[in-house]
Amino acid sequence: MKKIETIIKPFKMKSIFWVIVITVMGIAKVWAGDEPPTPLSNKTAIDLVQSHADYVWTLVAAALVFFMQAGFAMVETGLTRAKNAINIMMKNLMDFAFGSIAFWAVGFGLMFGATTSGWFGTNGFFLSDFTPGGDPWVLAFWMFQVVFAATSATIVSGAMAERTKFSGYLIYSVVISALIYPVFGSWAWGGLFHGKGWLESLGFIDFAGSTVVHSVGGWSALAGAIVLGPRMGKYTKDGKIKPILGHNMPLAALGVFILWLGWFGFNPGSTTAANKDIAMIFVNTNLAAAAGCVVAMFVSWIKFGKPEMGMSLNGALAGLVAITSPCATVSPLSAVMIGSIAGVIVVFSVLFFDEIRVDDPVGAISVHGVCGAWGTLAAGIFNMGGTSLKIIGVQALGIAACFVWVFPTAFVLFKLIEKTIGLRVSPEEELEGLDFVEHGGNAYPDFEVSTRGGISPSGISAGGAMAAVSTGTVKVSRQIEAA
Amino acid sequence: MKKIETIIKPFKMKSIFWVIVITVMGIAKVWAGDEPPTPLSNKTAIDLVQSHADYVWTLVAAALVFFMQAGFAMVETGLTRAKNAINIMMKNLMDFAFGSIAFWAVGFGLMFGATTSGWFGTNGFFLSDFTPGGDPWVLAFWMFQVVFAATSATIVSGAMAERTKFSGYLIYSVVISALIYPVFGSWAWGGLFHGKGWLESLGFIDFAGSTVVHSVGGWSALAGAIVLGPRMGKYTKDGKIKPILGHNMPLAALGVFILWLGWFGFNPGSTTAANKDIAMIFVNTNLAAAAGCVVAMFVSWIKFGKPEMGMSLNGALAGLVAITSPCATVSPLSAVMIGSIAGVIVVFSVLFFDEIRVDDPVGAISVHGVCGAWGTLAAGIFNMGGTSLKIIGVQALGIAACFVWVFPTAFVLFKLIEKTIGLRVSPEEELEGLDFVEHGGNAYPDFEVSTRGGISPSGISAGGAMAAVSTGTVKVSRQIEAA
Amino acid sequence: MKKIETIIKPFKMKSIFWVIVITVMGIAKVWAGDEPPTPLSNKTAIDLVQSHADYVWTLVAAALVFFMQAGFAMVETGLTRAKNAINIMMKNLMDFAFGSIAFWAVGFGLMFGATTSGWFGTNGFFLSDFTPGGDPWVLAFWMFQVVFAATSATIVSGAMAERTKFSGYLIYSVVISALIYPVFGSWAWGGLFHGKGWLESLGFIDFAGSTVVHSVGGWSALAGAIVLGPRMGKYTKDGKIKPILGHNMPLAALGVFILWLGWFGFNPGSTTAANKDIAMIFVNTNLAAAAGCVVAMFVSWIKFGKPEMGMSLNGALAGLVAITSPCATVSPLSAVMIGSIAGVIVVFSVLFFDEIRVDDPVGAISVHGVCGAWGTLAAGIFNMGGTSLKIIGVQALGIAACFVWVFPTAFVLFKLIEKTIGLRVSPEEELEGLDFVEHGGNAYPDFEVSTRGGISPSGISAGGAMAAVSTGTVKVSRQIEAA
Repeated sequence: MKKIETIIKPFKMKSIFWVIVITVMGIAKVWAGDEPPTPLSNKTAIDLVQSHADYVWTLVAAALVFFMQAGFAMVETGLTRAKNAINIMMKNLMDFAFGSIAFWAVGFGLMFGATTSGWFGTNGFFLSDFTPGGDPWVLAFWMFQVVFAATSATIVSGAMAERTKFSGYLIYSVVISALIYPVFGSWAWGGLFHGKGWLESLGFIDFAGSTVVHSVGGWSALAGAIVLGPRMGKYTKDGKIKPILGHNMPLAALGVFILWLGWFGFNPGSTTAANKDIAMIFVNTNLAAAAGCVVAMFVSWIKFGKPEMGMSLNGALAGLVAITSPCATVSPLSAVMIGSIAGVIVVFSVLFFDEIRVDDPVGAISVHGVCGAWGTLAAGIFNMGGTSLKIIGVQALGIAACFVWVFPTAFVLFKLIEKTIGLRVSPEEELEGLDFVEHGGNAYPDFEVSTRGGISPSGISAGGAMAAVSTGTVKVSRQIEAA
Repeated sequence: MKKIETIIKPFKMKSIFWVIVITVMGIAKVWAGDEPPTPLSNKTAIDLVQSHADYVWTLVAAALVFFMQAGFAMVETGLTRAKNAINIMMKNLMDFAFGSIAFWAVGFGLMFGATTSGWFGTNGFFLSDFTPGGDPWVLAFWMFQVVFAATSATIVSGAMAERTKFSGYLIYSVVISALIYPVFGSWAWGGLFHGKGWLESLGFIDFAGSTVVHSVGGWSALAGAIVLGPRMGKYTKDGKIKPILGHNMPLAALGVFILWLGWFGFNPGSTTAANKDIAMIFVNTNLAAAAGCVVAMFVSWIKFGKPEMGMSLNGALAGLVAITSPCATVSPLSAVMIGSIAGVIVVFSVLFFDEIRVDDPVGAISVHGVCGAWGTLAAGIFNMGGTSLKIIGVQALGIAACFVWVFPTAFVLFKLIEKTIGLRVSPEEELEGLDFVEHGGNAYPDFEVSTRGGISPSGISAGGAMAAVSTGTVKVSRQIEAA
Repeated sequence: MKKIETIIKPFKMKSIFWVIVITVMGIAKVWAGDEPPTPLSNKTAIDLVQSHADYVWTLVAAALVFFMQAGFAMVETGLTRAKNAINIMMKNLMDFAFGSIAFWAVGFGLMFGATTSGWFGTNGFFLSDFTPGGDPWVLAFWMFQVVFAATSATIVSGAMAERTKFSGYLIYSVVISALIYPVFGSWAWGGLFHGKGWLESLGFIDFAGSTVVHSVGGWSALAGAIVLGPRMGKYTKDGKIKPILGHNMPLAALGVFILWLGWFGFNPGSTTAANKDIAMIFVNTNLAAAAGCVVAMFVSWIKFGKPEMGMSLNGALAGLVAITSPCATVSPLSAVMIGSIAGVIVVFSVLFFDEIRVDDPVGAISVHGVCGAWGTLAAGIFNMGGTSLKIIGVQALGIAACFVWVFPTAFVLFKLIEKTIGLRVSPEEELEGLDFVEHGGNAYPDFEVSTRGGISPSGISAGGAMAAVSTGTVKVSRQIEAA
């Protein structure tokens, strides 16, 4: 009996002390007009602070993902010719500007509006979900989603670079942000806000969008590249593939660094909550990118005799795209494996599309379409919680559903544009360069710039094969009268 | 009676369980020496965690705003000539370096020091507000404010590009950060730290600084451009306006992407608190930028026949500047409207200043001065809480007060510099390029660079009109002896 | 007695009100199945929210530090010749990619694994510290540490630029990330995770790594530059120093802005906790950088007659490196002094290494090695908590220990590489440029680029002396057959 008392005694004394302290402070607080905190009011306050952390994290992540637009712009500009630099920049800029407006007006409602069908949403257009004074979470969530929609759109501009009419491209850009991306997105992610889409109901895993974002962009790019046809001089009549070198490799490398940075928003930000899960997602994202980069470099070294830069850059991107789907549900070791395999796939995929005469100046179809599919499959195979044929089957179904929805829709869209306002510039315009023809500009007026017609002798380009210094370029002399 | 008991019963049983758990844990804690948490100690802990979130958010936002310095440097370099690239970079770098020191030594005290007059502060110089061990909030707040001060300073370098003496520019740069910006800032924002300034006492709304930051920079830029006069060859004797093309459009586009990113710190960071308000500010900022970009592109397309890049870039910036003041107090739909109108204004404003022979190489006066004024007015017109003639009147008064304080002060300052150490380089130096003359450098020594004398035949430049490839450039051969 | 009652009365009444509210809400909660919050459960919840803030801050900071890789890549590319741009980019990219894999497999275990010796860790390889379901803090901590390891590695590529064999460089890159950096790191920082290293046990202050990261990189760079020897044409037979100008100064400036931004993750992120200390660290970091930049500019102005850009950029970096160690333990005024002194040191250090014929194309040895040592010493001298000969002595010991471990180890490593697979390209390859020879590429195929052989007449280069436009360049004509 006594023993227990000695145990309790210090507690008692401290308790009495604390009761006095609390009482005094409580009286003081009441005196000052404040309500005394209670466990319940504290719990509410704690939840509020946590929600503030969620807002900050989600929106900082959105800012990082936004910056990926600059990354795409730099990569695509760097890997194409100087005469088309303004055009590429304008496409990337407008992808985001038009995309923001389109996703605000239409896309977000289709993707996340209340729905019972599981196929698309039917309200929330123009952010009408939000009324001033209401819960602003819809705004934070929209902000995070709009940068994803724009990423999907901007993937395509690379594959269609150097030959697409600007006005035709704008039409496409609005449609993907307003329709193609949101509809597929609602199948896989609709439940993040309202009712679940049919794919997620089946258990489809695509944490940050290997399929939802990247494959949607990649298969649209494939449709665009096929409808457009290759750039002049890319494939010769005697069956040779002529690389068309990118004009500014430091910009391309800068772009990849920016994209890698942005992915630290893209993947861990997809928690849309400040929690401990983001740590593993960061690590997996980084390891997969590093592995993809290293492996693609070695594969290019073995295949072409040199560690090639375009392939190394695309290897890093391939690893990033592949880990996007499984980043939250696989171990770091699996992430290294997933990235490494993506680094192999991307090189052979780039060569394959060149072989079948699909001209993709920056390798977007391979990086985003093919490696997006690989990553989605990998999310099933390497799943930390265990895998099964059923899990892998659902992943495969999601991959297939994406292709079946996106490719034909985009194909028809591009064909419609081609038949109406036109999708491709004339051969003369293509030779001259789109900057002058489409925008009345010149990206580098202080420098002597050659308007290579895609006839550099040989070498590894971003999209494959051995690189070399371009020779025999065609210089076009231009002078127009003062306005 | 029995019914109530069955309601209470599970509560009772759980209560008993919880009382036991808490008691056991409490005893354990006491045993380990910790004080048991109480509602009051918890409340203090909650407030502390919230303040940590406030610090993180405010400082991350400050880092994003800092990065805008890189954005300005890229935009201004890209939109001017290669022969002046080092000079522009140096000005931007020194704006921030000198600005940081000047704002630490003098500016912060003038802007936020304790004051009863409402006109400027009188203490806190050299961060003497802060004593080690004291509340470090003043440091977090200073960090957020110094990047704003530097933004205001760096706006001016673009308008004065390609002809300003470096030493003269440095004097100006210190004065704006130490005096011009802080004094106006104390009128509108002083109350964020100590007593309210006279403008905010009237109810002036300028949440993140359309007027405080951007118009202060813009009107200083106007004064500088007027005192300097136009670049050689910009306006011909027969009354023609000759565009002087920017030399590196990918850099200019990169700069705009960086600025857009930085604005996600600039506007929502101005809460200086991690709360839910930042969501709407993010959305408004993004929508206004997108709308400004799209609209300016279409206006340029209609006016010049081509979707012009410089105008599209400036349209995005115009939207961003305009939404800076109203971002926290208007709806997303209003943000689209405010940005769209800014996209129209910026094009016509650029043409207007060219018409009256004010040579602003990058359009800074229009983007920051004019659209800053528009945004401040819009904060009154589109105010979510309702508007009135009085509200709009106060906004107009703030806009006018800014012009009346900044323009004459900056004008006199530039005149003083002109009369003493000199503000403009000689015509020979201007032709040669400021990089070599002022810094002994060459931005691109591996490339053949032309030192265009502003005689490109025609075309749309960043600041208006139709663009074309520069011809007839003057090549200057230089060789100096080894030191 | 009555008086006390009136004091207690409102408290009593409010208490009764609150007791009722809590009881009703409690019953409701129990009804809904939730446990009622208690002070203890709240305390646990508060700690959890704080830990979420810690994760977010540490990982956002890690993302900023990651971005420094882009900064280094831009600075190093900008300050070297166009013909080696791809090579520099590839080295920077691979530093991070290989470094990530090496630090995951080996380095992290050596640096932070459990150890009793105080010299290096012996477990935790391949992140085996972490088991799914376990505490993910090790992952967040790893992410923050891996970007530091890669920073150390990437410093070296600048000093060894334009003449190093790519395969040889890769070997070095893996060894520094897997061995050289982690071993020294465990001496100074091992206790951040497990047992303390011998240096930190003595009280060595290196908050964010002036010595641990920057001097390790700087002394490795010194060893590399010595083993390699200078670039062809840098030092003539008649004893003259020929500057070899950087080819793209806007990229170099962009790189410095990116690095400055990244340092806002590097220094305050080293708290690895969301707390109020980060405010002073931000301010100190910024002021030291600004002071270093301003002072180095003036020193270059006095010494060379012009405010030189390369020196100004390096001055900012010198200030940043110097404040890295003392950033958390000195006042803002001390930060200005520390940065200013670094701005003087860096100029004279660059001239000194040129004088003793150590060819460091970007000044990395001076910026990171020498100013890292200065900053570490300054942490002792300017310590806010007071200084003593003992404190300064320990700092000096740490500086010396770093040199004694790193320089010989790196020297032997580079010698071993030289004797086996080779460390330097042939003179013909160096003249031709590493881009073509090592990577089969061309960074700027649309531009006429000169392959300067280091024979520009005179001028200030990034690494010292007066700059001038390069003339008499050697143009190498290249054409290879189609594959």
